Amino acid sequence: MNVWGNRLKLSIFGESHGPAIGIVIDGLPSGEAMDEAMTAREMARRAPGKSDLSTARNEPDEVKVLSGIHGGKTTGAPICAVICNTDARPRDYDAKLRPGHADWTALIKFGGYADLRGGGHFSGRLTAPLVYAGSLAKQVLSRRGVEICAKIASIGRISDASGMPCALPGKQPAKESAETFLAALANDFPASRQSAEAMKEEIRAARKQGDSVGGIVEGVIYGLRGGIGEPFFGSLESSAASLLFAVPAVKGVEFGRGFGLAAMRGSDANDAIYAENGVIASRTNNNGGILGGIANGMPVLTRVAFKPTPSIALPQESVDTESHTGTTLRLSGRHDPCVVPRAVPVVEACLALCALDGLLQAAGI
Amino acid sequence: MNVWGNRLKLSIFGESHGPAIGIVIDGLPSGEAMDEAMTAREMARRAPGKSDLSTARNEPDEVKVLSGIHGGKTTGAPICAVICNTDARPRDYDAKLRPGHADWTALIKFGGYADLRGGGHFSGRLTAPLVYAGSLAKQVLSRRGVEICAKIASIGRISDASGMPCALPGKQPAKESAETFLAALANDFPASRQSAEAMKEEIRAARKQGDSVGGIVEGVIYGLRGGIGEPFFGSLESSAASLLFAVPAVKGVEFGRGFGLAAMRGSDANDAIYAENGVIASRTNNNGGILGGIANGMPVLTRVAFKPTPSIALPQESVDTESHTGTTLRLSGRHDPCVVPRAVPVVEACLALCALDGLLQAAGI
Amino acid sequence: MNVWGNRLKLSIFGESHGPAIGIVIDGLPSGEAMDEAMTAREMARRAPGKSDLSTARNEPDEVKVLSGIHGGKTTGAPICAVICNTDARPRDYDAKLRPGHADWTALIKFGGYADLRGGGHFSGRLTAPLVYAGSLAKQVLSRRGVEICAKIASIGRISDASGMPCALPGKQPAKESAETFLAALANDFPASRQSAEAMKEEIRAARKQGDSVGGIVEGVIYGLRGGIGEPFFGSLESSAASLLFAVPAVKGVEFGRGFGLAAMRGSDANDAIYAENGVIASRTNNNGGILGGIANGMPVLTRVAFKPTPSIALPQESVDTESHTGTTLRLSGRHDPCVVPRAVPVVEACLALCALDGLLQAAGI
Amino acid sequence: MNVWGNRLKLSIFGESHGPAIGIVIDGLPSGEAMDEAMTAREMARRAPGKSDLSTARNEPDEVKVLSGIHGGKTTGAPICAVICNTDARPRDYDAKLRPGHADWTALIKFGGYADLRGGGHFSGRLTAPLVYAGSLAKQVLSRRGVEICAKIASIGRISDASGMPCALPGKQPAKESAETFLAALANDFPASRQSAEAMKEEIRAARKQGDSVGGIVEGVIYGLRGGIGEPFFGSLESSAASLLFAVPAVKGVEFGRGFGLAAMRGSDANDAIYAENGVIASRTNNNGGILGGIANGMPVLTRVAFKPTPSIALPQESVDTESHTGTTLRLSGRHDPCVVPRAVPVVEACLALCALDGLLQAAGI
Repeated sequence: MNVWGNRLKLSIFGESHGPAIGIVIDGLPSGEAMDEAMTAREMARRAPGKSDLSTARNEPDEVKVLSGIHGGKTTGAPICAVICNTDARPRDYDAKLRPGHADWTALIKFGGYADLRGGGHFSGRLTAPLVYAGSLAKQVLSRRGVEICAKIASIGRISDASGMPCALPGKQPAKESAETFLAALANDFPASRQSAEAMKEEIRAARKQGDSVGGIVEGVIYGLRGGIGEPFFGSLESSAASLLFAVPAVKGVEFGRGFGLAAMRGSDANDAIYAENGVIASRTNNNGGILGGIANGMPVLTRVAFKPTPSIALPQESVDTESHTGTTLRLSGRHDPCVVPRAVPVVEACLALCALDGLLQAAGI
Repeated sequence: MNVWGNRLKLSIFGESHGPAIGIVIDGLPSGEAMDEAMTAREMARRAPGKSDLSTARNEPDEVKVLSGIHGGKTTGAPICAVICNTDARPRDYDAKLRPGHADWTALIKFGGYADLRGGGHFSGRLTAPLVYAGSLAKQVLSRRGVEICAKIASIGRISDASGMPCALPGKQPAKESAETFLAALANDFPASRQSAEAMKEEIRAARKQGDSVGGIVEGVIYGLRGGIGEPFFGSLESSAASLLFAVPAVKGVEFGRGFGLAAMRGSDANDAIYAENGVIASRTNNNGGILGGIANGMPVLTRVAFKPTPSIALPQESVDTESHTGTTLRLSGRHDPCVVPRAVPVVEACLALCALDGLLQAAGI
Repeated sequence: MNVWGNRLKLSIFGESHGPAIGIVIDGLPSGEAMDEAMTAREMARRAPGKSDLSTARNEPDEVKVLSGIHGGKTTGAPICAVICNTDARPRDYDAKLRPGHADWTALIKFGGYADLRGGGHFSGRLTAPLVYAGSLAKQVLSRRGVEICAKIASIGRISDASGMPCALPGKQPAKESAETFLAALANDFPASRQSAEAMKEEIRAARKQGDSVGGIVEGVIYGLRGGIGEPFFGSLESSAASLLFAVPAVKGVEFGRGFGLAAMRGSDANDAIYAENGVIASRTNNNGGILGGIANGMPVLTRVAFKPTPSIALPQESVDTESHTGTTLRLSGRHDPCVVPRAVPVVEACLALCALDGLLQAAGI
Repeated sequence: MNVWGNRLKLSIFGESHGPAIGIVIDGLPSGEAMDEAMTAREMARRAPGKSDLSTARNEPDEVKVLSGIHGGKTTGAPICAVICNTDARPRDYDAKLRPGHADWTALIKFGGYADLRGGGHFSGRLTAPLVYAGSLAKQVLSRRGVEICAKIASIGRISDASGMPCALPGKQPAKESAETFLAALANDFPASRQSAEAMKEEIRAARKQGDSVGGIVEGVIYGLRGGIGEPFFGSLESSAASLLFAVPAVKGVEFGRGFGLAAMRGSDANDAIYAENGVIASRTNNNGGILGGIANGMPVLTRVAFKPTPSIALPQESVDTESHTGTTLRLSGRHDPCVVPRAVPVVEACLALCALDGLLQAAGI
């Protein structure tokens, strides 16, 4: 069902070309100061139209809070935040299915009643309310020593050579770890300084060819204390993956070395454990800070694969759903040649919401 | 929380060395004939002790049904099935943390009260009740034209060259597709005939060195009709991933070409759509039968990464939790050099439960 | 948690004096035509300010649909509907606790951060979005032969002598049963013609004395087919009661003869069963159409007790939460002397949502 | 669905004449010592066969714990407890519907596949695992200053004149309040000393006539701190009612003065608030310790109506489901003339589970 979370409950709603999109967030502690400027910065990171690397659709993505925040602080009641669709252009939906999009499946599922203009409820635009919710979670977490960062690990065939921060000692304050992480990134592109230019070129090359390109985002939770996550079905990995796979275009999720672990020997994969000053830690972090579905106090590491934007200018073989015959689809309009740069804050939002839900579940009596 | 599913509800319980493990399955339709022989075959596929490739722990894994099945048919009431731990050897739990295991995190979470003998609730043994539940789901699905298969895609550095069945037409009856899939497998090992021997050798090599090895399992759902899956948080990928990541040792999940899509161009990744005899299908299946989180009627394809068994004979650096000092861990006893062959029916069980929960959710009024 | 339902999911939000209140409704079938005029009529039944019997607060309660309805039909995506608080008067919250209100408990729970102006999230105003959701459910149900009605059974010490429709044959079409039910009601007051005037007088008498009065609402679901409801924790009574007890001021819920059954003998309480023209029915309906938590096809009968409005003009002993000392509270302003007439559509909404969630859960594959 | 709770999750299973009944309880804190003797006493309170007032079915109701408790303490993993059906007599199910029972509805719902021998999954026997779960919850609560008591308020037409403990100061330690409550009860019957004999006579009179009789159970939670309960759909009353209405034979639930409040004026119903020694309390407790769905720190008061046992010796009009014709049903065998005395610990169990789930949900970070 379209509700996520255990002690946090998220309900998302909206269609790309409807009046508004938004989210209801229930379960945040009361009395949490929420910095609107911080939220606006997060929204801006995801917003389109900032450079030649993203769609020209120009949405300010201004969040209007309808409930649950009063005098700058959470009231304890559910928060509803909406974003009006100001740049929605009222045009007819095209009967030609767009390959790689949800048009086809929405049509099967909802029998033609789905509002598919611009992707409708399946639009990547729905990640805006998710980023909003994540910005609240981040602020709650930050006060409790938990920080979330993400960056681009690859765009198309360009992979970041700077590596995963997989062997961090886990003993540094989360704030400092996050600063170190961010300091290594390029100013205008959420990837390491050494990879940023090549990645941008990869995006530009795809766009120039009327094509699009995918990539991988790498996220980390610093400062999550050991013990977060619940047994079996409640594993932290299950929780994070269920949220990440809700994000449009995500087709793979892994933790720690993930698929890489499948090719390793146990003697390499196991993270040796040691004690120092009464603190137990691991020498490496191949398991990404999670063992048996539960955090061990090391940085939580995840990698998320995004497929190339399905909207491309190149002609595609498709079907006209009215005539039920083959056709050639030629898409015009504003499309991201690559969603990955804008997906970085989305991955962070997912990790923040997952970490907060985990913390709340682990709260004791 | 430790309950999975929407219209199906699974509650799993038990500890490796406690009296019994088991599962409660709620939400199965009534009147479904359940073939005990089929269930026994499924249990045997997962059971240890069958060859030199798996642990010598000899558990018959005999399922006792306590409720919900009467006269060979489901009654509509919740099914509880238990498996007694007959080969549990009552020994003290070792205070040395086993790297890569949940000992460490269980200790943090439960403050030393966890029953960690043999991994306790975090043991891979808990997948036995999951396979049982999956065997029921498979029978319900099979009557509705849905079939589930899985095989090993890689063991350590040995990858199956036979490829994913990603471009299947999706028009063949599921039963035939499944038979074709299974016909390509080796008799005694759930991998393609051409890869099976090399994979076995990889496992034997690891075992000989006191080591272990990981691998990838590839699963497919044939015959799932389009429209299954719910919007956003209820995506089929979220549902499947949340269940798969509950399985011990799983560290990565992808759908269709998954992480491979991240390196592709949109023009290659998009699956061209065509119509034939009034049926809409796609030429390729890079998206693994799921668009926007919802099945499109093509085979649903998933790949699951398993890390190497953390229990290895080689000495490992660890910590003694009583003295809080470093120590060298030397594990003796019965361990799987590779869990992947036994994980094949577990992946199938997860896919079956996910498909059935999806079908039930999509049922209309 | 603040989400209700199984296959329907409701998330409610808003505070009495915040920007807006609203609801997200997920799980409605797609393609359902939604009649705005019908919805407006339902909203008007609950709205205040219509007569001397209710508060003078004048809220048009105009519903704005943000998502999920397109071209007058449900799209299958979540519906978000908001109602702006146009008559909210920005005044400071009074530090004196209002006896019988949630001021006290909200203060304990949220540590003073709750927006308690006008009751905040605990205001009866939150029933407006519930009535909206109910109006959608009613339309979906009506097309499937299910009708919901409710009336006032008592106001203060005035009880309706016309009795419960407990022995209805259950064989009449639901539409006709509902028409018969409604035909017996007064034109301007949702109680039987013979009781309406006395009930109104009871309300006016309370108001004249600066006091308020409670009452009982009786609701019925006609045409719900047998088999709706799930075993044990999923009983139809559990589902309905959990929703009804969420409604502010509800302090008691019973089904069929309810508390009256406690004083009866089994031979009187049991509803004799007979068969006629191949249909099985019961001679009486003391069990209110529910046996073992599951509908038997007879009308589902429920009675809901509402306490008197806690806001009264009479002076009351209270506590000033700033000085933590005793004080006398004198409330001025717009208050309902009795919420019961306006609660009738709220009870109907709850029954409709419960019936629809039950139908959806019982849908088979 | 057949799972109850938010941070506690209960899954119940079993059929009256199947191999066993039981429950899975997830979410209890780890390290909680569980006193088996206390649990056995609770089970004995509910068990049949103790006097001439209950059924002669002789079930020891011996609980076998399969998981989650190790060395007398909770491990943190889910607890599964089963009770074998030792006195189940394998006989054929009678095709005649028993009025007032779930035979009819189970037949509609499950199409004849339900195991209806002895009521099957709808049997009152399923309350045994609930009492077991409640006994664990009570022990966890007692260590945190929360105590649960219940007694019979009426049997048939015999009402207890000793009144509800509705005006308790709420300032006394819960332990003492509970002792006072229990001290007023008869030794061998869970009702006040002055009412016990008359109530027993009422039961005997019914039995002598081949009939049965209903009654009301009154429960109280002492020591629940203010702030427990969640807004709107998460109200404490919603939570408690949803659990109580799952109990077979429950047809009404009210809190505080409940239905009585409907006949009161606001000036009488509102509980005046005062402060004493820095503690805020109410002079009366008409609201039963709950305002706006959230505990205010006063004793939580609930009353639960049980209908008469539907199984009676007197002949009843019914239908033979094989011939679909009318018939006269004559039940022989072991039946409770009144379930109410045995229902007292069941109500306590529900209140304990609800209180504990509420406490866990309110736990902060």
